[in-house]
This record gives sequence, structure tokens and C-alpha cells, in this order.
Amino acid sequence: MSRTVSLAVIPGDGIGPEVTAEALKVLHAVASDHDVEFETTSFSLGAARYLETGDVLTDEDLAAIASHDAILLGAVGGVPGDPRLVGANIERGLLLRLRFSLDHYVNLRPTRIYPGVPSPLADAGDVDFVVVREGTEGPYVGNGGSIRTGTPHEVANEVSVNTAYGVERVVRYAFRTAQSRRRKLTLVHKTNVLTFAGSLWKRIVDAVAAEFPDVEVDYLHVDAATIFLVTNPGRFDVLVTDNLFGDILTDLAGAISGGIGLAASGNINPDGTSPSMFEPVHGSAPDIAGTQKADPTAAILSVALLLDHLGLSEASAAVTTAVTADIASRAGRTRSTSEIGDAIATAVSQ
Amino acid sequence: MSRTVSLAVIPGDGIGPEVTAEALKVLHAVASDHDVEFETTSFSLGAARYLETGDVLTDEDLAAIASHDAILLGAVGGVPGDPRLVGANIERGLLLRLRFSLDHYVNLRPTRIYPGVPSPLADAGDVDFVVVREGTEGPYVGNGGSIRTGTPHEVANEVSVNTAYGVERVVRYAFRTAQSRRRKLTLVHKTNVLTFAGSLWKRIVDAVAAEFPDVEVDYLHVDAATIFLVTNPGRFDVLVTDNLFGDILTDLAGAISGGIGLAASGNINPDGTSPSMFEPVHGSAPDIAGTQKADPTAAILSVALLLDHLGLSEASAAVTTAVTADIASRAGRTRSTSEIGDAIATAVSQ
Ligand SMILES: CC(C)[C@H](C(=O)O)[C@@H](O)C(=O)O
Ligand SMILES: CC(C)[C@H](C(=O)O)[C@@H](O)C(=O)O
Repeated sequence: MSRTVSLAVIPGDGIGPEVTAEALKVLHAVASDHDVEFETTSFSLGAARYLETGDVLTDEDLAAIASHDAILLGAVGGVPGDPRLVGANIERGLLLRLRFSLDHYVNLRPTRIYPGVPSPLADAGDVDFVVVREGTEGPYVGNGGSIRTGTPHEVANEVSVNTAYGVERVVRYAFRTAQSRRRKLTLVHKTNVLTFAGSLWKRIVDAVAAEFPDVEVDYLHVDAATIFLVTNPGRFDVLVTDNLFGDILTDLAGAISGGIGLAASGNINPDGTSPSMFEPVHGSAPDIAGTQKADPTAAILSVALLLDHLGLSEASAAVTTAVTADIASRAGRTRSTSEIGDAIATAVSQ
Repeated sequence: MSRTVSLAVIPGDGIGPEVTAEALKVLHAVASDHDVEFETTSFSLGAARYLETGDVLTDEDLAAIASHDAILLGAVGGVPGDPRLVGANIERGLLLRLRFSLDHYVNLRPTRIYPGVPSPLADAGDVDFVVVREGTEGPYVGNGGSIRTGTPHEVANEVSVNTAYGVERVVRYAFRTAQSRRRKLTLVHKTNVLTFAGSLWKRIVDAVAAEFPDVEVDYLHVDAATIFLVTNPGRFDVLVTDNLFGDILTDLAGAISGGIGLAASGNINPDGTSPSMFEPVHGSAPDIAGTQKADPTAAILSVALLLDHLGLSEASAAVTTAVTADIASRAGRTRSTSEIGDAIATAVSQ
């Protein structure tokens, strides 16, 4: 009897629905070959839903989504500068609310330069690393405030909250990830300036390192890490860092590896106490929405991460292999979003 | 009668003294041609001084430095991991203390790709922008703390403090800088996550923009800004951003423009209420200290920024011209620190 997985699907805004359609096409194609079935429920969330109903994410939405085994998300966000969206903050109210409520403490963002993909770097070398970004703490907690707002005496604060509990669990995950790869872990922070948060991260990495004597550990300030990402990205295996530094480093990583159109991510709750969520790193790109110009590859690679997370590693590898072959065949060709999805879906079921 | 400028010199640690010696050589060479004299006082500060005396920067040091017209700094910081420096934090106690005490609210970091310099980018294009980094607020204020430190229940917070007063003055400086250049200003922040600080920055940029109708303004999230820095750095003219984002972006900018060995910076108090401080962006590189392998170019370009700040724009241009010509002649040559300094010093006085 085949296994059944319930999947909450949030296509979202802009190009989100288009790339999600292709990701699901590939998911269903590979599933039938690996004795698993995905039952999908689609949730209409994002800027469009907000403009229609005024809701960003209701408690009922959240409970319904949380009852699934996993989540696939396309992209959310309306047209930048849309006056009707001022004050809505779909990012905080939807994306970050999901990550925080579902305790997605690992934000997993792999970077590879696929054969055939041009990098903006003249000599990128062999690039294959993964950023383990903390997902539930740091400057993302939303503990800010302002006084005398709108006056010349305004003071606006943002608080970065970091806990031993929160840092240790993500650091431990990063060490395990390094152990399954090339056994190198780089902590990225800014310990010389953010001395309290930095000291906590550093002490926890040092303590956990003792349990993983086969993993080589080093440390870089975040500013120096950006230098190495453009001068010697091949030096990295696993990077572990806080929520904000991880946000910055992974966009840069996407850029050097040939564009954010290939960057996939998993918002993971490793303890399995709530469903993990997989999404491309790119945004909703409203300017090209509906034109079939979007590259669905990042969404499809997010499916590979999803399959891997569910323990379906063969199915995951089939997707990655099909994507890698497809990417290698791209030079000079222009295909629509669904043509790329069709090609990869056909390839995975062969 | 010639003008006399008093200059506090902080050679610092590692390669600091070597590059500072060359910077002073060039400064004195250009000064005599432009009817100005520099009286220098050297301050022995940094890791070496700390190890000798236990002092990082005494109130007396600070008062003595503050009585000068300007400051030239080489680099500070001991050997990474030196156990005797644990807990000293020379960066906070010396560099940041100077920036904060002397109210260096503009941290000016120009980036150019000089003709003849190889960039790690395959197709960098024409790159000439300047980052105006706020220098006295944001996550750098040192308002952090931790409770239950060292226990599994530790909470470590960092507070980013942003004021209308502090943001407005640096934003105004950035607009004036844009007006004297290509009239494009890009605000970089993370308004969708750091909603209070981001909103303050955004509102102030919008308000000040009304006074500069000839300057075109745009906005990028910090993660997106790193993408453009590697895919299309030519799009930037002036970037204005907070202390931490500015730190990260300028190291990346240094890297794409051919290395941090060419990146100069000014810590500026535009109101003239205290001396401004000029320094290369690079660190003290203790591993090559004393070997005459360090490139003094960033220190020499910091002299150009210093001269410009003092209103000696012809002398500043002479230094930039000499450096540009020297850089263009470098391909394949290896010269010692002092050979490079000698060549540029000779060129400026011709
Ligand atoms: C949209 C935004 C809130 C989000 C983040 O900052 O985490 C995005 O940039 C990302 O990296 O997934
Ligand atoms: C040494 C450090 C405190 C400093 C900073 O973070 O500002 C450095 O990185 C810089 O950019 O000048």
C-alpha cells in the first residue's frame, strides 16, 4: 500500500501560482514512481487575498495549514509600492508568522553552481555549500518599537533576541549536516560588535563542537564572509548563522551561483512537531506574473528538499538529477515556465 | 604663509604601521606642493599597547586625539585567537569608541574599479559609487545584555537604536553627496522585517527627498542590494544605510572592486565639532606584518579623503591621480609596501 502525504499548498502572489503549478507537476510525476501519494489542499493567501478580504493569515488558516504533513509555498507579496498594501506587511503577517508559529528553526538554503550555469564570478570554482540559517530568533522576532513617532525626537528600536535553547538546536542541526557532507562548519556572526549575541553563538558552537570532533570549525565576521563568497566560495561547506545574516548571505549566495531563480529553501522543524515548509528563495516578481517567463526551477528544487525531508531520498535524488540535466541543456534556449516544468516532469518519470 | 594642520596618527597593529608610514610619505610629499604643512603626533594604541599597559583608550588619549584637526589610522587588532586579548575587544574599545565619542556620524566608503584592477566579477562594468554608512547608531550602539549567562536558559539581546536626529543628518549628507555626483540615491534597509527602524529610515528619506528634487531615489532591501552588487554594481551612485548594513555592504563592495587592499574610508563629523578620522577598510593582517607585503594603497587613498575633507581638493586630486596611474601600471609586478609608497610619493610631487 502506498504512503499518503498531506500537503498544504500556498501558491501566493505574482509568479507564485505559475512556479507552484510546475513544482506540483514534478512532485506528482515523481511520487507515482516511488509509491507515495500527495494529497494537496490549496490555500489562497497573500496580497491578493488581503486585498479581497483584509485577512493576511487567520488563526483558522494557520490551524488548517498546521494539520498537514508539509507545506509548499510559491511566493507572496504584492506590487511594490501598491498604496493599498501600505501597513499590511504580508511578509511579517504571513511568511514570518508561519515560520515562527510552526517553529521552523532551521532555514536550510543550499547553494550549488550547476554545470552549465554562468556565474557572475569570473572564476567561481566548485561551489557546493549549505547555509543553515536560524529561523525563529534574532532581529526577526519583531520586538521593536518607537516613541515620539513622526516627530524630530523619534527613537525607533529593534531588539535581537537570542537564546541558548534556540541557538543550540540550530547549531546542533548544522553540525549534523556538516557530518553528512564535507565536515566543515563556519560560524558567521559579528562577535566584535554584537558582543552579547555573538558571545552566545560562539560559546555554543565551541561547546557543541566537542561532540563532533570530526567536524572542522571556523569563524568569520559577516562582513568578511561576504568577501569570501565572491572571492573563494568553494571554501564553504556548511555555514551556520543568525536569521538576519542568513537572509543576507543566502541572497548573495543565490546571486553568485547563477541567480535566485535556482535557489530553493526549506523552513524546517526538525523535531516534527509541526509541518515544514518549502519555498523558492525568490519573491513574487509581479512584473512578470502571468507571462510564463518565470523560471520554476527554484520551486522544483524546493520539492527535492521536501522529498528529502520526508525521508523519500530516492525520489528527491530523481528530481535533483532531472533538474541538473535540464539546467545543463539550457544554454541559449528560451522556454516558458510550463515547458521547463513539463521537461523536468517527463525526465523524473523515466 | 602656509596653513598648518595638526594630525593625530594611530598606526596601530600588524600592517598598520607599515601602511601608515607610506600614507604619511605621500601626505608630506603632496602637502609641500600645496602650501600646507602637517604636524603629526603619533599615538601608540591597539593590541600591542593593551598587552603592554592594559589600556585600550584612556580618557587622556581621547582628549589628546580630539584636540587635533584630523586623524589618520592604520589598522588595529591583534592576532586572532590570542588568549591574552580575550575580553579586551580592541574594536569596541578603540575604533568604535573613537567613532562614537567624536560623533563620526558619516562613515564614507567610496568604491571604484580602477583601470587595470581585476575584479572577481566576470563583467563588472563601470563601477563608481559611494556608501554613506551611518556611524553612531543602529546595532552598533552596544546596548546589549544577557541574563542567565552560560546556562541553558541564557537570553542574549542586542538593541538597535535609531533616532530621527541621527538618521536625518546622515541622510541629508547622502543627498548632498548624490547632488555632487550622478544624482542617484539608494536607501538600503530591511523595512519588511525591521519595521520600526525601517519605517523611520524610509520616512526620513522620503521627507528629505522633497528638498532634493533633482536626486532620484530608490530603495532596496539589504539582501537584494547584495545581489545587485554582484550582478549590476554599475547601477549604484550613492547608497545610504545603517551602521551594520553599511559594514556588510562595504566589505562586499571592496571585494568586487578588486580587493579590500584598495578600499579607503572616512569617519566624518561633517559639523566640524571634532576631528574626522581616515582609515583603510582593511584590518591589521598580523600574519603578514613586518614583511613589507601589505598594499599601502587603501591607506594612501584615505589620505586623499582626508585632504578632500580639509578642503584641499587639488592636493586630494593629485593623490588620486597618482594612485590611479600607479594602479594601472601594476600588472604582474610585485613591489614592497615602501616601493609602492615611494612611487606614489614621487608621482604626486611631479
Ligand atoms: C520576505 C522576507 C521577509 C524574507 C526574509 O527576510 O526572511 C525573504 O527575504 C527570505 O529570505 O525568505
Ligand atoms: C573592526 C570592526 C568593529 C569594524 C566595523 O564593524 O565597523 C570594521 O569591520 C569596519 O568596517 O570598519
